[in-house]
Amino acid sequence: MLNIRQLFEPETSTFTYLLWDEKTREAALIDSVDVTVARDIKLVNELELKLKYTLETHIHADHITGSGKIREQLGTEAIVHKNSQSDCADRLVSDGDIIELGSYAILVLDTPGHTDTCITYQTDGYVFTGDTLLIRGCGRTDFQAGDAGQLYDSIHNKLFTLPDDTIIYPGHDYNGFSSSTIGEEKAHNPRLGNNRSREDFVKLMNSLDLEPPKNIAEAVPGNLECGLKQG
Amino acid sequence: MLNIRQLFEPETSTFTYLLWDEKTREAALIDSVDVTVARDIKLVNELELKLKYTLETHIHADHITGSGKIREQLGTEAIVHKNSQSDCADRLVSDGDIIELGSYAILVLDTPGHTDTCITYQTDGYVFTGDTLLIRGCGRTDFQAGDAGQLYDSIHNKLFTLPDDTIIYPGHDYNGFSSSTIGEEKAHNPRLGNNRSREDFVKLMNSLDLEPPKNIAEAVPGNLECGLKQG
Repeated sequence: MLNIRQLFEPETSTFTYLLWDEKTREAALIDSVDVTVARDIKLVNELELKLKYTLETHIHADHITGSGKIREQLGTEAIVHKNSQSDCADRLVSDGDIIELGSYAILVLDTPGHTDTCITYQTDGYVFTGDTLLIRGCGRTDFQAGDAGQLYDSIHNKLFTLPDDTIIYPGHDYNGFSSSTIGEEKAHNPRLGNNRSREDFVKLMNSLDLEPPKNIAEAVPGNLECGLKQG
Repeated sequence: MLNIRQLFEPETSTFTYLLWDEKTREAALIDSVDVTVARDIKLVNELELKLKYTLETHIHADHITGSGKIREQLGTEAIVHKNSQSDCADRLVSDGDIIELGSYAILVLDTPGHTDTCITYQTDGYVFTGDTLLIRGCGRTDFQAGDAGQLYDSIHNKLFTLPDDTIIYPGHDYNGFSSSTIGEEKAHNPRLGNNRSREDFVKLMNSLDLEPPKNIAEAVPGNLECGLKQG
């Protein structure tokens, strides 16, 4: 059995996910956050897991990863998309790569658009979509080589072709939702569902006129250093 | 398949749970909150569910239930423990009662101690424990006929006798956790695990000296009216 535990960091409304193979106890942590590293390592120890990897869905602009601190304590492998050109990462992955976790295979899907480093991790009927596809929303596309047309293609050509009952675990939620499904987002995502055209979507995304994320100046370079050099 | 969707209300850190039978689409909402009624009804409609019940794990002191508003819109049945002596409820339940949801049976377990109206709902390998058993914690016992000895007995004699892999969905969490298991809490709950004695537990709970919940004066009478008369 693949176990999944959803964890939340309220300051940036970020979800971290702990995945483990019940039998082998091998575990991975998706999108760790620096301020919750102590909580998450305590949980890993209580559950008697062998944490093998920290996986990033992308180079985040809103929070600092905990991957470097966790590696110092547990000897984990820090994994990010190859486009990030991160010097601190232990493994750079891209579309089609497989990350082995006990008897499970975690498949890397390139899903650029929010940034050019965006990955969706797919395993066992679940997708961890980061900021690519949110519940009834999607990531913004106005920084870090974001591209609305690319985001549309990632969602329509990759995520929306998965089975309708695939469970979506997003990177954030701001409305108290915790999960969704591909079928649900195809039908009810106000930005993407109901066959909205690519042209309409690009127009919508390019008209949002959002404030920059308040932590972007520290977060992006900090995350390229696995969160170990900040400020 | 039984579907479970965890929903969160950040003001009072309350979890609401939407449960439904995939096949019959019959659904129940555990611990709805007045301020998130619109969100939850929208979700119920999008998922094309027939919401039959609103279930309360107890008469809450920190937030106002959405059960009355939901009943007005969807014709649901409002269910609470018989000790609450609520005039507005449609059904009063107690230990051993069964609530039918499609092909699933939701079993009522009396788990008094946090209040004398506390229920744990058990179904399909899950327990919805309200404020009786929290993740690495438990509810306070200093109001609404709370009783630390009773809480100890509810947890040890009822919840901790369930299979270790039973998944716990609590009524609140303040640390970013979303679920736990019986085995995990038996081993790692700092208030209750590791064979702490009843006497020690009662001493601990009676020494907490907590501030009263800030909404208790409105919440308790409001909840006895299904949230329809406030202030």
